[in-house]
Amino acid sequence: MTDRKTYDVVILGSGPAGLQAGIHASRKNASTLMLGRMDNSSLYWAHIENFCCQLAVSGEDVLNTGREQVESFGGIFRDEDVLAIEPEGTLFSVHLESGETILAKSVVLATGSSRNKLGVPGEKELLGKGVSYCVDCDAGFFRDQIVAVAGNRSAAAGGAVALTRFASEVHLYCDTLDVADGLRKQLVETGVTVHQGVKIKEIRGKTGVESVVLDDDTVREVSGVFIELGAKGVLELTATLGVALDESMKYIETDKKQHTNIHGIFAAGDICGPPLQMAKAVGEGCVAGIEAANHARKLKNEG
Amino acid sequence: MTDRKTYDVVILGSGPAGLQAGIHASRKNASTLMLGRMDNSSLYWAHIENFCCQLAVSGEDVLNTGREQVESFGGIFRDEDVLAIEPEGTLFSVHLESGETILAKSVVLATGSSRNKLGVPGEKELLGKGVSYCVDCDAGFFRDQIVAVAGNRSAAAGGAVALTRFASEVHLYCDTLDVADGLRKQLVETGVTVHQGVKIKEIRGKTGVESVVLDDDTVREVSGVFIELGAKGVLELTATLGVALDESMKYIETDKKQHTNIHGIFAAGDICGPPLQMAKAVGEGCVAGIEAANHARKLKNEG
Ligand SMILES: Cc1cc2nc3c(=O)[nH]c(=O)nc-3n(C[C@H](O)[C@H](O)[C@H](O)COP(=O)(O)OP(=O)(O)OC[C@H]3O[C@@H](n4cnc5c(N)ncnc54)[C@H](O)[C@@H]3O)c2cc1C
Ligand SMILES: Cc1cc2nc3c(=O)[nH]c(=O)nc-3n(C[C@H](O)[C@H](O)[C@H](O)COP(=O)(O)OP(=O)(O)OC[C@H]3O[C@@H](n4cnc5c(N)ncnc54)[C@H](O)[C@@H]3O)c2cc1C
Repeated sequence: MTDRKTYDVVILGSGPAGLQAGIHASRKNASTLMLGRMDNSSLYWAHIENFCCQLAVSGEDVLNTGREQVESFGGIFRDEDVLAIEPEGTLFSVHLESGETILAKSVVLATGSSRNKLGVPGEKELLGKGVSYCVDCDAGFFRDQIVAVAGNRSAAAGGAVALTRFASEVHLYCDTLDVADGLRKQLVETGVTVHQGVKIKEIRGKTGVESVVLDDDTVREVSGVFIELGAKGVLELTATLGVALDESMKYIETDKKQHTNIHGIFAAGDICGPPLQMAKAVGEGCVAGIEAANHARKLKNEG
Repeated sequence: MTDRKTYDVVILGSGPAGLQAGIHASRKNASTLMLGRMDNSSLYWAHIENFCCQLAVSGEDVLNTGREQVESFGGIFRDEDVLAIEPEGTLFSVHLESGETILAKSVVLATGSSRNKLGVPGEKELLGKGVSYCVDCDAGFFRDQIVAVAGNRSAAAGGAVALTRFASEVHLYCDTLDVADGLRKQLVETGVTVHQGVKIKEIRGKTGVESVVLDDDTVREVSGVFIELGAKGVLELTATLGVALDESMKYIETDKKQHTNIHGIFAAGDICGPPLQMAKAVGEGCVAGIEAANHARKLKNEG
């Protein structure tokens, strides 16, 4: 185990938060290793038009450009996931999918927050073509159109209410609505049609969403399906390190400098909670990358 | 005063923080007004290569693209500065350079942090001893005394006007006065002596400012020199609102949701402190824009 490579900064995640952290860490001359898979980023299949200052771009293009930037400043990519992280003195040992272990002076957690899937035919195929996991990102695309929302909780109900400002009709499909009274009232006031006990069993469409098939086999024409089943973070990794979560218990808690409660561990992007947006991810990545490089340098100077 | 326009969200600043706030606010269907001048952004003359995910770009191009985005979502630009903000019930009245006043449900402060220097002998040595970068902070020290102001824009002209309430004589030195008609009229009405095309080339004094030397080598006795080369600084604007600063007393304090201590006032970008980077500005702008739109909607629902 003596020949394990040591990096100043190891970044878990090659989405926008990880890439921006990689840019800022490597620009500060920290040796920087980027992990994770680009096509596992939430952004990969997205079409983005609300990120300053780029006109409509594809997620894949954006991520490739970011990778090019990190590499141009000396950062190294390994397209594999991390299976475990353990403290080792003042450093961290990081266990990779390939079986290899490396050492990190600073770790940046930028693993995003994988959204829960509905798991029906058409969902994956029509993602970004009418299927969305983010009302705030995509509501504007459905002006004067009919949309469906799937989910029981506040994310779904609140999303349905917000959609009424754009869409001509909003249909909420849920097992049993599990929301507070205020929100229940808003559903009524804003004219959301709530279908309790009805499930979407298929999403249909050729180049874009055209309809949903319900579990009683009726078909409803819609141009958009919003899946709001709540977001689930990649938190198993960090539980063993004692990294603290925020009040929702779904996201990692950081201060404004993106430090977690564990010295040397930083976090950025969707894993830190809403708004789940590229701009926020990039902003937090910038701060986390700088702080991680500073931490590594301090260890170097002390050691 | 009954026909003052009311906007959901008014954003001070058209740099990256303001632009990203404008994108997110207008995407949430908030009526959004953008103020400030694009060419006063720190980014305008910059060449950026560390912002994910764009390869080397010019600041000017970046800002123009951001403006196009905000406009495409319905945001409106007025290229002028804000001279004062006052609370008015649950709203804020915002006084513009042109003399007009508008009402805002939410205000986003994204005015950057440039404190431009004059760069003349004596400026550094006499800082705090008669040389000042903040009229609102220091005007009271110059009761019945003669003062000079340097600058072409609203900060200088507005500062000169404000100084007439204290000083016995106010001399404004500028290349070419570049302010709206309303402010120009105020300069005349308050008796500011405007010296166009005349520059201060030295500030003299032993223990405090005694005189300025002009570029035609004449010397004028003054006890104070106010250097106001940017737009009106946000710290001056917000002092009257009671917006709290951070420990450094140079930046605005916000929580992680970019709320200041004043309900309805948000802040983003360089004005919130280091790292003074575009990525951080954009990240904070995203959050501030969303929160500002939410605040405006809450008022709407209550009212
Ligand atoms: C369909 C869709 C459309 C969207 N549209 C927009 C939009 O228009 N505008 C906008 O601003 N946002 C949009 N978003 C949200 C945006 O994609 C996210 O906010 C953003 O990608 C978050 O960045 P991130 O770096 O935090 O996480 P991600 O981009 O999700 O990246 C996570 C990274 O972590 C890696 N990872 C995960 N687990 C591990 C592990 N164990 N070890 C190592 N690496 C790991 C993954 O491989 C991946 O590289 C959209 C999202 C979706 C799903
Ligand atoms: C030469 C230079 C090079 C740089 N290079 C880089 C780089 O490579 N990468 C990087 O990430 N960062 C760089 N920066 C930093 C970057 O420019 C800033 O971090 C960024 O511009 C901050 O954005 P902001 O929106 O907070 O403020 P700014 O971009 O400074 O915008 C401030 C806005 O507020 C407006 N305003 C001011 N007062 C008022 C008022 N009273 N009323 C209304 N509006 C007002 C101004 O008109 C302007 O529109 C550079 C800065 C400089 C000076």
